[in-house]
Amino acid sequence: MAEAEAGGDDARCVRLNAERAQALLADVDTLLFDCDGVLWRGETAVPGAPETLTALRARGKRLGFITNNSSKTREAYAEKLRRLGFGGPAGPGDSPEVFGTAYCTALYLRQRLTGFSGPQRPTCWASAALAAELEAVGVACVGVGPDPLQGDGPGAWLDVPLEPDVRAVVVGFDPHFSYMKLTKAVRYLQQPSCLLVGTNMDNRLPLENGRFIAGTGCLVRAVEMAAERQADIIGKPSRFIFDCVSQEYGINPERTVMVGDRLDTDILLGVSCGLKTILTLTGVSSLRDVKSNQESDCMSKRKMVPDFYVDSIADLLPALQG
Amino acid sequence: MAEAEAGGDDARCVRLNAERAQALLADVDTLLFDCDGVLWRGETAVPGAPETLTALRARGKRLGFITNNSSKTREAYAEKLRRLGFGGPAGPGDSPEVFGTAYCTALYLRQRLTGFSGPQRPTCWASAALAAELEAVGVACVGVGPDPLQGDGPGAWLDVPLEPDVRAVVVGFDPHFSYMKLTKAVRYLQQPSCLLVGTNMDNRLPLENGRFIAGTGCLVRAVEMAAERQADIIGKPSRFIFDCVSQEYGINPERTVMVGDRLDTDILLGVSCGLKTILTLTGVSSLRDVKSNQESDCMSKRKMVPDFYVDSIADLLPALQG
Repeated sequence: MAEAEAGGDDARCVRLNAERAQALLADVDTLLFDCDGVLWRGETAVPGAPETLTALRARGKRLGFITNNSSKTREAYAEKLRRLGFGGPAGPGDSPEVFGTAYCTALYLRQRLTGFSGPQRPTCWASAALAAELEAVGVACVGVGPDPLQGDGPGAWLDVPLEPDVRAVVVGFDPHFSYMKLTKAVRYLQQPSCLLVGTNMDNRLPLENGRFIAGTGCLVRAVEMAAERQADIIGKPSRFIFDCVSQEYGINPERTVMVGDRLDTDILLGVSCGLKTILTLTGVSSLRDVKSNQESDCMSKRKMVPDFYVDSIADLLPALQG
Repeated sequence: MAEAEAGGDDARCVRLNAERAQALLADVDTLLFDCDGVLWRGETAVPGAPETLTALRARGKRLGFITNNSSKTREAYAEKLRRLGFGGPAGPGDSPEVFGTAYCTALYLRQRLTGFSGPQRPTCWASAALAAELEAVGVACVGVGPDPLQGDGPGAWLDVPLEPDVRAVVVGFDPHFSYMKLTKAVRYLQQPSCLLVGTNMDNRLPLENGRFIAGTGCLVRAVEMAAERQADIIGKPSRFIFDCVSQEYGINPERTVMVGDRLDTDILLGVSCGLKTILTLTGVSSLRDVKSNQESDCMSKRKMVPDFYVDSIADLLPALQG
């Protein structure tokens, strides 16, 4: 890909060659990586990506993994990182380096629901992927799993009993999403004190070979529209997920890099939080998208431009081996 | 409700008192009514509404019923009109006066898919409510009914076989909507020649006593977002549904009234098509909504103001009995 394709008068989005990478790495302590489309696609690691992370660890860099995917717990992500050769924390007592939206949603709810709790644990209505993380912070989960249509018409659908005392509707990735679930979510949300939380607004979840499935954002939007409410969003580009990392790691934004494949989530988060940013071209966004943002007359688009780009994070290897 | 609450410098949205109603009715041949929230709520007729329609028919006015609700066929609507006392065409051979989105979607698809048909009938992927109307115009339907999750992960979900030669994904009201259906819809839509059609964008379907269920718009939006496509919308405020009426009735817009309970569908359609408009306060929109639109600095909102309003369509009775 020719360098001339990107870059502009504002000198942003230049190719991160070995020389620039060495200078950059000398200035940073922490690298935060998105996962899907950056480290792997589906169950296949991006070639050279595991070696890059091993070399970064060897140079004493701290790594963190920030993913909008809510379909796995923190532990399940740590296991996938190890399985695909990306290593992990040394000791079994060390906390995982993964900040997924399932985990961060649990932190958010613990924060928001604290002080409101009566004799029972606060209860949320959520999908299976979130249940484990929510239970771990003391939030009970209902509504997990399939929920086929009950009753023979609108009146009967609205008469299906609800769980008592539901304090939040949490919309995460849910392959069992159904009209019945949508109907129930909206009924819980008619209580103004019931929170509406969405793990992320991604419209697609990329898999191997250009394949993809519908993302959580589609489900959040359906619930928002029916409920006439706006969801609190946990994932990138919302700042909350970065605050979770920052609190656990004690981050200095100026000495931190965000590496991602999406301009509208990863790069926007990095820019908003004052981090250095690298776009990798192994996932969703292209240099054409960067150019279109650079030339846009819309301020919010012009924020979605990274400092650097690489064809793949394996491009960092020469700088680390030098 | 005080008259002063509505009306403004532009002299629009005045109460349709008996005198104004007589003058208006002298100038019109045809009255088009929305159904839910105008004639009935759920299974209960608005008091006085059947008598109003009977009186209008007695004065030789032509009536038409335009509804975004796609959950019933034209015949099923005609039957509901009769059952709740709204009468209907005299002879059994007369065509129904109902223009629902199920019927009009069928007209749209017949138009769009004509000329593309091979040896077989063109096939659409649609919900049960639409199947009867589509079959009636020679379009085959697949994908009707429940479609629970098959397979144990994203790869398997994408390997579930699709029906061959699907020419359009039609999203109408579907209580069996599920993540599996969303996944399949998006797979069909990866074929650029496959049409995406939504019956309407209503976010809610109102029932009796202020209750409601999620509307078709929520499902259309989810599919649009995952497919990164914009649906062709059939229902109000899209002009297509009016064109269906116009073609069958041979309407003179200047001598036609649109009566509805929603500013963003019924009244906007009427204004866009050059009809006279009456808002009835028995449904979704209020005089407060009218005022907010009148005072908006947004041109598209200022179009959503009716010529007249009534507390209920029964308010037309005195003018008809005089």
